[in-house]
Amino acid sequence: MSSGADMPIGIFDSGVGGLTVLHALREQLPKEDLIYLGDTARVPYGTKSPESVQRYAAHAAVWLTERGIKLLVVACNTASAVALDVLRRDLAPLPVIGVIEPGAAAAVAHSAAQRHLVLATEGTAARGAYTEAIRSLNKSATVEELGCSMFVAVAEEGWGGDPIATAVAEKYLASYRSRPASERPDTAILGCTHFPLVSDAIATALGPDITIVDSASTTAKAVAAELDARNLAASGDRTGSVRLVATDSAARFARVGSAFLGEPCTESDIELTDIHPLGGAADRTGA
Amino acid sequence: MSSGADMPIGIFDSGVGGLTVLHALREQLPKEDLIYLGDTARVPYGTKSPESVQRYAAHAAVWLTERGIKLLVVACNTASAVALDVLRRDLAPLPVIGVIEPGAAAAVAHSAAQRHLVLATEGTAARGAYTEAIRSLNKSATVEELGCSMFVAVAEEGWGGDPIATAVAEKYLASYRSRPASERPDTAILGCTHFPLVSDAIATALGPDITIVDSASTTAKAVAAELDARNLAASGDRTGSVRLVATDSAARFARVGSAFLGEPCTESDIELTDIHPLGGAADRTGA
Repeated sequence: MSSGADMPIGIFDSGVGGLTVLHALREQLPKEDLIYLGDTARVPYGTKSPESVQRYAAHAAVWLTERGIKLLVVACNTASAVALDVLRRDLAPLPVIGVIEPGAAAAVAHSAAQRHLVLATEGTAARGAYTEAIRSLNKSATVEELGCSMFVAVAEEGWGGDPIATAVAEKYLASYRSRPASERPDTAILGCTHFPLVSDAIATALGPDITIVDSASTTAKAVAAELDARNLAASGDRTGSVRLVATDSAARFARVGSAFLGEPCTESDIELTDIHPLGGAADRTGA
Repeated sequence: MSSGADMPIGIFDSGVGGLTVLHALREQLPKEDLIYLGDTARVPYGTKSPESVQRYAAHAAVWLTERGIKLLVVACNTASAVALDVLRRDLAPLPVIGVIEPGAAAAVAHSAAQRHLVLATEGTAARGAYTEAIRSLNKSATVEELGCSMFVAVAEEGWGGDPIATAVAEKYLASYRSRPASERPDTAILGCTHFPLVSDAIATALGPDITIVDSASTTAKAVAAELDARNLAASGDRTGSVRLVATDSAARFARVGSAFLGEPCTESDIELTDIHPLGGAADRTGA
């Protein structure tokens, strides 16, 4: 039986996007063992009802907790927005960390003007979870949320460094850069786990006066702080392991995931599993 | 009780993409009444298992046939590839037309060199259904299938006429244009219902020597021929009606769908329904 500090951290996302959070965790917490579960059979979550996403998140959490984890990271903006409270209640005392609160907190901490721009998928932007999280920290903050779904396609195609990424960013963002300084946002939150892969293009389009807040690295920092506070950080002279698990399409997961993870991975690195508690994914078995 | 010719044509897709087929039907068969069902609750189909897609297609077909249709159009490449045979068997004698066979037949008919390029989503390209359909018509044809998923995002964002569409097409397709004439494809099939919205950019990138085959308009021609052959075409001095039905997210369907349909539509134009025969969409009710 392993003690708490020796147990892995569980990370859960609807697909490959959360691998940017895994990557940030690897950089900041290289001693930690990590298990990543991507629910690729049911991606995307953004267009599903909150009830469905809560159920999917519960299945993923059960699958991960059954394997023994010391902390759960919800590395998916949609699931963080609609399922975090339920997961915290159901999994207590297991610490559960989402991607929205750390990004919102970092933005508020770094912003002089408290004018925030949230870049997200259409679904996340429409839901307004970042606005709520920022306002709960600073009631007078101004928050604009912009749906930029094309960045997801650019990231998944591996074109983050291509001039097309620059052109897409320019089209979405040039109007913010050209505003008078007194109306211009001074922080931009990458409110989608795919967006760190296009952050250079985003930074160029927004200009030098806006701080980019990457919710992947801020989430990793929040995880590090939580482990320290609970005395659960891995210690000693060790290098953490990574276990990658998907619910469908291991080949695509490996190919697209390599860029997100920042290191090569192949189909044989990916385990396939079925996280539905009744033994069949709902969208496979129907009924 | 209406006679066969007075009944509507049913059109089914996983989302909004098939509206390009609806648009082509409206242009070519303006007297026909049309019912379009977009299964937006379960989009995309391309990443789902064949068994799931067959089941979803069966639900959609049941929903449409219960409303009384004289012909079913499967305006979805994934469903056409994996579910058409089953639907034809189960719905006989109702005529069922998919999008792959008409596109393949038109390409073979128009190609002198019989060198075909199929542009599709990653899932469709990997499945090779166009290659199979073309080879069944011409065993010596050369077929290449290219996954171009970014075109879907460009189309859905409404950027088909933007320089970004041109840049994306150039990145995917410039290498075909620059081949020696003897190795260059002479037809390009738009093997995704989204792609008619980026066809100008595709045509520019491929150059003037390649014929673009639009599977939306070729499918509409196949429907017209089938109705004539069965003596089921609407007649008289009338203008057909259009009924739009979605299984989720009417607001997004209306907004994105307007561009696909080529005419404005608003949320109030869209009916919401649940096509699952047990009264709940599988990915909503779980179990």
